[in-house]
Amino acid sequence: MLDSVPSFRRLVDELSKLPGVGRKTAARLAFHLLQQNESQVRALAEAMLDVKKKTFFCSRCFHLTETDPCNLCTDPARDDRQLCVVEDSRGLISILRSRSFRGRFHVLQGALSPLDGVGPDELRIAELLRRLEGGAVEEVLIATNFTVEGDATALYLEGLIKPLGIRVTRLAFGIPLGSDLEYVDDATINRAIEGRREL
Amino acid sequence: MLDSVPSFRRLVDELSKLPGVGRKTAARLAFHLLQQNESQVRALAEAMLDVKKKTFFCSRCFHLTETDPCNLCTDPARDDRQLCVVEDSRGLISILRSRSFRGRFHVLQGALSPLDGVGPDELRIAELLRRLEGGAVEEVLIATNFTVEGDATALYLEGLIKPLGIRVTRLAFGIPLGSDLEYVDDATINRAIEGRREL
Repeated sequence: MLDSVPSFRRLVDELSKLPGVGRKTAARLAFHLLQQNESQVRALAEAMLDVKKKTFFCSRCFHLTETDPCNLCTDPARDDRQLCVVEDSRGLISILRSRSFRGRFHVLQGALSPLDGVGPDELRIAELLRRLEGGAVEEVLIATNFTVEGDATALYLEGLIKPLGIRVTRLAFGIPLGSDLEYVDDATINRAIEGRREL
Repeated sequence: MLDSVPSFRRLVDELSKLPGVGRKTAARLAFHLLQQNESQVRALAEAMLDVKKKTFFCSRCFHLTETDPCNLCTDPARDDRQLCVVEDSRGLISILRSRSFRGRFHVLQGALSPLDGVGPDELRIAELLRRLEGGAVEEVLIATNFTVEGDATALYLEGLIKPLGIRVTRLAFGIPLGSDLEYVDDATINRAIEGRREL
């Protein structure tokens, strides 16, 4: 039936390309957009194009920005001695949201994944090492994801940075706050026992 | 942090207005769009605006269309003696997809819901009655949703159409195919027992 409404079909096709959006959800979203007035739809469409036009990656830390260097790199309240390394801007935002880290950031723009053809040269590792050469950084906090790729990347960076005489730390493994132990997976419990702390 | 990237923030704001999309999902979608090249994002943005520009409701059946009357109203293979009444184009598409109905359609564009201010005048009921005046329709199959509003609408339409001497039917209540009885709600089982069929 959608064949008779090509513009609708095309919208469903385009929406289905979004992550986590199947054809049914895409159709629901498309109907929703149809019910909005044109200015509302235009606001969304323009926001999409606008973000592509205005944002780019900071030339220092490779976080998303509209100014270069970004406001995290220029913020005088942040501590140059601590540098938190994340895989992507999403990770950076999570760390930032926790308000527990007051240093600078470096976004790798990915994690090592040889099977996907992502080696050290595909990541912003050379740029990271160049930043460390400045000598201001005393601690690198590795905040890559807790996945096979994130672990491999953390290990690789540790091997590169430790010889420079810089302290390398990583976010603690453990049980998430508010967890019921019954539902925590074995591997996480293993790591939490290994990392147990004196009270 | 998003404050430092206003265009990104605006995109997340706009995406969060979509049904079923919270701020976390909106941020995930926004990052996904950022990673696409501009022509891909443009394709989605233009599809949104395009569907608003090109589609409208058929003046006969009030289904979504790009031509008037729509191709369901003009299809010579469809039977003028049967008319299926649905709440909206989504319902119509579901019926169409089942390939079990070969008649015409009428889209009410909603269901009776006095609490939301939706009375008979807000729906395409006058237009439905005008179509029935033609005399060609022998059966009206009511396919409103199985909700309080859909039931009320079905009952209301039955009261209007039966006196015209036209057969009024409704989709069968019952157990969905593939169901495990244990997980079917009581109300559905009640209706399935009431509607049981001789074998």
